[in-house]
Amino acid sequence: MSEKLPSETVSEHLDRMSGWRKTPGRDAIRKNFQFKDFSEAFGFMTRVALAAERLNHHPEWSNIYSRVEVVLSTHDADGLTEKDFALALAADQAAQGTG
Amino acid sequence: MSEKLPSETVSEHLDRMSGWRKTPGRDAIRKNFQFKDFSEAFGFMTRVALAAERLNHHPEWSNIYSRVEVVLSTHDADGLTEKDFALALAADQAAQGTG
Amino acid sequence: MSEKLPSETVSEHLDRMSGWRKTPGRDAIRKNFQFKDFSEAFGFMTRVALAAERLNHHPEWSNIYSRVEVVLSTHDADGLTEKDFALALAADQAAQGTG
Amino acid sequence: MSEKLPSETVSEHLDRMSGWRKTPGRDAIRKNFQFKDFSEAFGFMTRVALAAERLNHHPEWSNIYSRVEVVLSTHDADGLTEKDFALALAADQAAQGTG
Repeated sequence: MSEKLPSETVSEHLDRMSGWRKTPGRDAIRKNFQFKDFSEAFGFMTRVALAAERLNHHPEWSNIYSRVEVVLSTHDADGLTEKDFALALAADQAAQGTG
Repeated sequence: MSEKLPSETVSEHLDRMSGWRKTPGRDAIRKNFQFKDFSEAFGFMTRVALAAERLNHHPEWSNIYSRVEVVLSTHDADGLTEKDFALALAADQAAQGTG
Repeated sequence: MSEKLPSETVSEHLDRMSGWRKTPGRDAIRKNFQFKDFSEAFGFMTRVALAAERLNHHPEWSNIYSRVEVVLSTHDADGLTEKDFALALAADQAAQGTG
Repeated sequence: MSEKLPSETVSEHLDRMSGWRKTPGRDAIRKNFQFKDFSEAFGFMTRVALAAERLNHHPEWSNIYSRVEVVLSTHDADGLTEKDFALALAADQAAQGTG
């Protein structure tokens, strides 16, 4: 899970996902999640937090009211690993309420 | 919001809602919420907790994995008040992800 | 982590812990946590929820305002396992804010 | 609660608080909170989220693992109001576990 992925694998993962893109100037991916209100946004954040502890891999993220920006990268690998995409998938599922 | 409701008003509220019923032997209402897994259940609980602080009215509740039972009553009024139905509505909205 | 513990081992664990005791009529342990208010209680619950996902082991618990009762047992083992005591320890640490 | 405060009042508030300072180039205040781990950080965030709903005033904030940065400003007032300092106080209390 924690080896740095080659860029082709990163591209393949991103092609299969919606809304995630490379962060300019960093070996990281990011996505903006827009919710109806703060309650919905923080319910999402709580579910991502649970997934982060389960995966032992944590996001860099920010929140302003109904918006959450999630940035994922694996510091130990100095790049993107399968852990990042596992957490990205968990975030997408939490956002859809299908987790 | 905090006066005890007459039983006809309680019945009218319950008729308009889904899954809420009177608790036998107590002037309270209850509902069981079933989710897919613990993450979904605790995301729901977080949103109900936010609503509880907003309304300054708190549930009696229990959780086992994917199931949450919510019991609502207003201790100060020794019965059911509009606060209970406001929190019940917020819980239903949180469960539907439409909050 | 998930084999049923002999009763001597359960007793030894309980002797080293504060506030946990056997549940009458069940092969489970329980503890009541009392907090200052709902915010403190729900902050605790969130940290226990994170530990539960990390350990892949979940509590049976209930909350009324500033009080949280936690019951732990391992259904698959039909009794108490090291998982229960790992989660009990995490709950105690969360309650002390030392997690 | 929601009128823009004169700069002397802002300074007086900041003098009485620990770690909060004006944000360069914005009419906002900020503070970095450092915790032991993600669990402690997210427990804090949950309590601040509850306070935000109670006060109907929400932070701009970001989290990386054990660190949380909180920025407060009142958009409607185009500056700092008593609401910001009420939420700052709630955040400090949550961080101290004394809330």
